[in-house]
Amino acid sequence: MATLADHARAQTAPALETLRRLARQPSVAATGEGIGECAALVGRLFEEAGARVAVHTLPGAAPLVIAEFAGESGRTLLFYDHYDVQPPDPLHEWTSPPFEPTVRDGRLFGRGVGDNKGDLVSRLAAVRAVQAARGRLPCRVVFLVEGEEEIGSVHFGAYVRRHAAALRAEGCIWEFGQRDVRERLQVTLGVKGICYLDLEVHATSRDLHSSLGAIVDGAGTRMAWALASLKDPTTGRVLVDGFYDRVREPGPRELEATRRLPFDEEELKRQLGVDRFIGGLTGFDAHRQLLYAPTCTVCGIESGYTGPGSKTVLPRRARAKVDFRLVPDQDPEEIAQLVRRHFARFGLDVSVTLLGGERAHRTDLDDPFVALVSGVAAEATGREVVVLPTSAGTGPMHDLAAAIGAPIASIGTSYWGARAHAPDENIRLADFEETVGLMARLIERFAEVA
Amino acid sequence: MATLADHARAQTAPALETLRRLARQPSVAATGEGIGECAALVGRLFEEAGARVAVHTLPGAAPLVIAEFAGESGRTLLFYDHYDVQPPDPLHEWTSPPFEPTVRDGRLFGRGVGDNKGDLVSRLAAVRAVQAARGRLPCRVVFLVEGEEEIGSVHFGAYVRRHAAALRAEGCIWEFGQRDVRERLQVTLGVKGICYLDLEVHATSRDLHSSLGAIVDGAGTRMAWALASLKDPTTGRVLVDGFYDRVREPGPRELEATRRLPFDEEELKRQLGVDRFIGGLTGFDAHRQLLYAPTCTVCGIESGYTGPGSKTVLPRRARAKVDFRLVPDQDPEEIAQLVRRHFARFGLDVSVTLLGGERAHRTDLDDPFVALVSGVAAEATGREVVVLPTSAGTGPMHDLAAAIGAPIASIGTSYWGARAHAPDENIRLADFEETVGLMARLIERFAEVA
Repeated sequence: MATLADHARAQTAPALETLRRLARQPSVAATGEGIGECAALVGRLFEEAGARVAVHTLPGAAPLVIAEFAGESGRTLLFYDHYDVQPPDPLHEWTSPPFEPTVRDGRLFGRGVGDNKGDLVSRLAAVRAVQAARGRLPCRVVFLVEGEEEIGSVHFGAYVRRHAAALRAEGCIWEFGQRDVRERLQVTLGVKGICYLDLEVHATSRDLHSSLGAIVDGAGTRMAWALASLKDPTTGRVLVDGFYDRVREPGPRELEATRRLPFDEEELKRQLGVDRFIGGLTGFDAHRQLLYAPTCTVCGIESGYTGPGSKTVLPRRARAKVDFRLVPDQDPEEIAQLVRRHFARFGLDVSVTLLGGERAHRTDLDDPFVALVSGVAAEATGREVVVLPTSAGTGPMHDLAAAIGAPIASIGTSYWGARAHAPDENIRLADFEETVGLMARLIERFAEVA
Repeated sequence: MATLADHARAQTAPALETLRRLARQPSVAATGEGIGECAALVGRLFEEAGARVAVHTLPGAAPLVIAEFAGESGRTLLFYDHYDVQPPDPLHEWTSPPFEPTVRDGRLFGRGVGDNKGDLVSRLAAVRAVQAARGRLPCRVVFLVEGEEEIGSVHFGAYVRRHAAALRAEGCIWEFGQRDVRERLQVTLGVKGICYLDLEVHATSRDLHSSLGAIVDGAGTRMAWALASLKDPTTGRVLVDGFYDRVREPGPRELEATRRLPFDEEELKRQLGVDRFIGGLTGFDAHRQLLYAPTCTVCGIESGYTGPGSKTVLPRRARAKVDFRLVPDQDPEEIAQLVRRHFARFGLDVSVTLLGGERAHRTDLDDPFVALVSGVAAEATGREVVVLPTSAGTGPMHDLAAAIGAPIASIGTSYWGARAHAPDENIRLADFEETVGLMARLIERFAEVA
């Protein structure tokens, strides 16, 4: 009799076809291209597998797909995925066109095959494998698939609060996950939050001749003062009063887990093109900073004349975009307010708009769900598994955790060379097959927990 | 028998037609539009008046027109003008099209009618009036007309050094001049210099995900630190070491002359849309700062993402443009070098390119030429004349003064409401006529000096 692993392997080839079908459908959240079509396609894929599907909408939002597979028990495993992808630019750097998924050297190339359409399809294939092995799923499985992950999950919080009842679950698998340079599967338990601000300075009633710079400070100069005041150039410490008040430092268990993670300092510096890290941090201190420290980054500035040659203008207006990556228990609304107070205290007349805010989240390392997921991963792959207490990146994990009150762990199809968000995004076919088997096993094991 | 004043009046109507002809010819130095055509037209206008004309060129430069009218004596009065104009944008704010000069309410509207085609034509009309009155000019009159004044007179220094022999003169009338709010004609004796820098920061090998802001400072942040380090937000003082070392403070005669100038502080604040001046300066202190202090202004900044919404990018590159208005005896090359040293000392890796440099110049208040010009202006207008030791603006006066070794004074057709560089640029027809008479008288009187 065929084992679950056999069924999972059998599902891999049709699942790969499904992934190609899904990856051929552009779904660029930043431009809106193909978003509606892709949501509909995702709905059909789940219906074809026997799920009860609801495609929800909110005004101005990308549709949200919730797909429910009934199970023998009422216990529910929730999968969080997204069907939107990053823009494919720069197009000329792709070896094959981004929306024509192509297999080369045992890898599938295409925009979104890694982040995160491959994960989505591997999970759906796992459901099909368990269905094939047992006829009926041993527990409920619900998929929550949004279409705005790549633009900050703008409406995700509202959607989740609205449909919290449908999302009730005892555990959740998050959207991403990769194999590190030593081929160890990573299980990630948290994400940072974000406070993304738009800053605007209006200095004068109109652009002035720069000779007036003798008695009037222009908007460009004032914006430079405002931005420079946010962060110490030597230590990298954020200088906004109260910014660190709610920071929860990592515990001993988290630091211990972090020490087991690979961190090739010199390779990272080489990749980033820098010769030192902020504050001269090295080794574990730099790794700890990357994962557990909040940040302050100027993402964009514009003011005055930036064309060729010289124009002697004193610009009336300057704009900037600044993101703060937050850690537990910082609150984006509060940070925005602290920044407003900071500028006011320094006499800098800067208008501050909160463009996007998410809180950080970290699932407890000691939650039994973490042991379950890591254990299944180790069994399914036969390799060591590493647990990351948090990613340095951001996602709407806090919103979902608050709605479902269940542990969340992230594990997926990706690997160290996947080039997410970049040209030639790809996954390895062997990883895809491995993940289908792993997820099938996880559904079975999850159902067995009392 | 007709007086010189009668001849000047008779020249006004044809001169106005000449000005309309010249102002209909676009000549935008920033874009190059019509520059060659306008230089040719200016040459023809001088030839029609009997001058010996040379249109000089340099590679990549707008042509320079030198027109010489022979005179009874070898003594030479030099007029410096420019045929180029500012770009006409924003077009929709013009009441009549910028290059269709139009008379309304006793004023002529059009791009360049004030700055400085009106001056050029008024001076040419004065030559014609003296010719009509006497048959032959009593002294040599040379016109030096460049086509890059509005973009920083990029090649003017090279032209002037090359043609210094043809420009030998005993006195020079500079391009601009206006009637103040009390209708007093201004005679301006100096200009500030400029050091215009392009700054560039390369932080990383490529744009990074902003989550890496925990360990790497992006180019936007670094540029903000660099720009903010240049100037004290409270006092407005430039913080570059050595910046003030060569500053020549205004003398008692200059300050005394400055006290006679109008400076309506509240009106100026209202116009500029500010509620205070740099460092809280008021009254004469603010006026003194405007005329005699060097400046530092961020004219433009660009880095990273500045489109709608949020993009979480850590930008690899940032650029900025900064202008320093200089006073005697600051040297733009030296200032650029001091700025490079300043960034190096603060560990800020900023590449600094000098895009344009001019030194400041001030003609001695006690030079007899100043008394001659002011005296003629007072006689010709019957009104009080005020002498400005310097303008707050910049021009290539130092280059010319160095080449000819003669005093320079600026006096012209403009008035307090002329809107130079802005939509609805205009001059008053009465001022134009007044200036023709004044310049004719100046040519006569200049020739009389032993």
